[in-house]
Amino acid sequence: MAAGNAVRCAAIIGTGLIGQGWAIVFARMGWTVRLFDVNAAMLAEARALILQQLRELESQGLVKGADTIIERVHVAASLADAVKGARYIQENSPEKVDVKRALFLELDAVAEPDAIIGSSTSSIPASQFTEHLAGRHRCLVAHPVNPPYLIPVVELCPAPWTDAAALEGARDVMTDIGQKPVRVRREIEGFILNRLQGALLHEAFRLAKEGIASAEDIDTTVKDGLGLRWSFMGPFETIDLNAPGGIADYCARYGGLYQSIGADQSECVAWDGALVDALEQERRSLLPQEDLGKRRFWRDEKLMRLMRHKQEDGDNHG
Amino acid sequence: MAAGNAVRCAAIIGTGLIGQGWAIVFARMGWTVRLFDVNAAMLAEARALILQQLRELESQGLVKGADTIIERVHVAASLADAVKGARYIQENSPEKVDVKRALFLELDAVAEPDAIIGSSTSSIPASQFTEHLAGRHRCLVAHPVNPPYLIPVVELCPAPWTDAAALEGARDVMTDIGQKPVRVRREIEGFILNRLQGALLHEAFRLAKEGIASAEDIDTTVKDGLGLRWSFMGPFETIDLNAPGGIADYCARYGGLYQSIGADQSECVAWDGALVDALEQERRSLLPQEDLGKRRFWRDEKLMRLMRHKQEDGDNHG
Repeated sequence: MAAGNAVRCAAIIGTGLIGQGWAIVFARMGWTVRLFDVNAAMLAEARALILQQLRELESQGLVKGADTIIERVHVAASLADAVKGARYIQENSPEKVDVKRALFLELDAVAEPDAIIGSSTSSIPASQFTEHLAGRHRCLVAHPVNPPYLIPVVELCPAPWTDAAALEGARDVMTDIGQKPVRVRREIEGFILNRLQGALLHEAFRLAKEGIASAEDIDTTVKDGLGLRWSFMGPFETIDLNAPGGIADYCARYGGLYQSIGADQSECVAWDGALVDALEQERRSLLPQEDLGKRRFWRDEKLMRLMRHKQEDGDNHG
Repeated sequence: MAAGNAVRCAAIIGTGLIGQGWAIVFARMGWTVRLFDVNAAMLAEARALILQQLRELESQGLVKGADTIIERVHVAASLADAVKGARYIQENSPEKVDVKRALFLELDAVAEPDAIIGSSTSSIPASQFTEHLAGRHRCLVAHPVNPPYLIPVVELCPAPWTDAAALEGARDVMTDIGQKPVRVRREIEGFILNRLQGALLHEAFRLAKEGIASAEDIDTTVKDGLGLRWSFMGPFETIDLNAPGGIADYCARYGGLYQSIGADQSECVAWDGALVDALEQERRSLLPQEDLGKRRFWRDEKLMRLMRHKQEDGDNHG
């Protein structure tokens, strides 16, 4: 779908960290963005915080013309003003079903008839807050990773009543703004990304609990091992290249080993008590509490430089 | 431990892909390397293949002076010649217990009294092929990822009778050659890396089997999502920064969600039949069989450029 400039207008409802991130993603690709938040104080500072992040991105060579980009970001006086003329609405309210139910009712009433409404929720399926809406067919989850301007994947998960056209439209919008939409074919807890992350984390917690390895060594195994390939190839692509004949050959060769390991990985260790105390203690010995904030800046700068490397390195699908 | 030049000599036994990779890792850091393989044809071509890979690394700016480095790599006339004067021996024979048992018996008989012997096995605990040895205290698993000159993690896993000094010595050698040793505290199937990979793969196979997402979208979720952070932070480091108060705070906030997801992740889907057929078909539609070889070169070049980026980006532990 060719997105004409006339309709490249998005409303960002809820202007905390995630909403600010979405505003950057849309505005840097030329979209007009209208911000709204019921929290007047948050709304008042959102544009300045967005500009600050844009300047940081510019200093890392990831956007050009922060001062021009911010001109496309507008603070709206009301919800109705924010969504007027917007082809796409991204909702970023707190993770509470009641809040989202009420907000979606309001949004559905004031949005343009053909606007698509996506929710940033990471844990609530759209069916729990859109069933009662006249326009429920145009609502879905569009779950980003924080910060969305550095991590492009967006999980699109329709409710049972979401139109195919709305899903397709959301996918087109995401592609147009340079994100990487993936489709979660039906509602499932944790969608895809957090389910994959959770599966690996559960094994990490089991290994730590059993005393097989320190948290530091488990981290090293990922960042100096598994995570290198996974930063440009997914898990199936990876194993597809790890046997001469491709993925089926890999499964024939190593499936037995993984089945045997897997039989041993069903225990779901609770993330509490002495285990978490020990992990907290180990992490704090490596990174004191007071340095957590600084370390988050470090992470974001690492991500920025990684994304610039990936841009310079070119197409993943060579 | 300061490794004096006098003892920076390693023997590489078994000169297939993994053995060649180890030779590069040692030689590029100034070690003298002696190669041996019972397969005379494989041994005869190993040095040329190593030089070829060194030149490729040089063209990517990852080593300097391939022609000087290769001068440190020698082909030995016998097993005894290979290990003579070697402080460290890396074994890379086929993944068969009988082969390793026989080879370790021979190695233990001819190795220098204080030499440490590591095995590259990815699946056989050292206790299965070293119990019968007089020098079993100096044997352990040193499991690399392929290719070790691009992926630095090495899993060190002692047998119950491995000396603390041998484990420490192996760790020193790995650190000296620029690898990242992690300690597997006791023998466990799949060690750490493949257990973590397996846990994520099992969830990927479940999601594919249940029709929740295409293999392509699962791959995108990792390479444009989870895998970005994991290329410079491990899973614990990642969640430590994803809640204001650190890892314990993260567990308190999100542990319930992950427990609920985890309760649903115990099924160990078999990697065969219609599921693997469908995955094979999807992969082959994206990457034809005849392009697999070319794609492996692409992967290795991507890895080389990623490693150069990581080197330029500096210390992970800022």
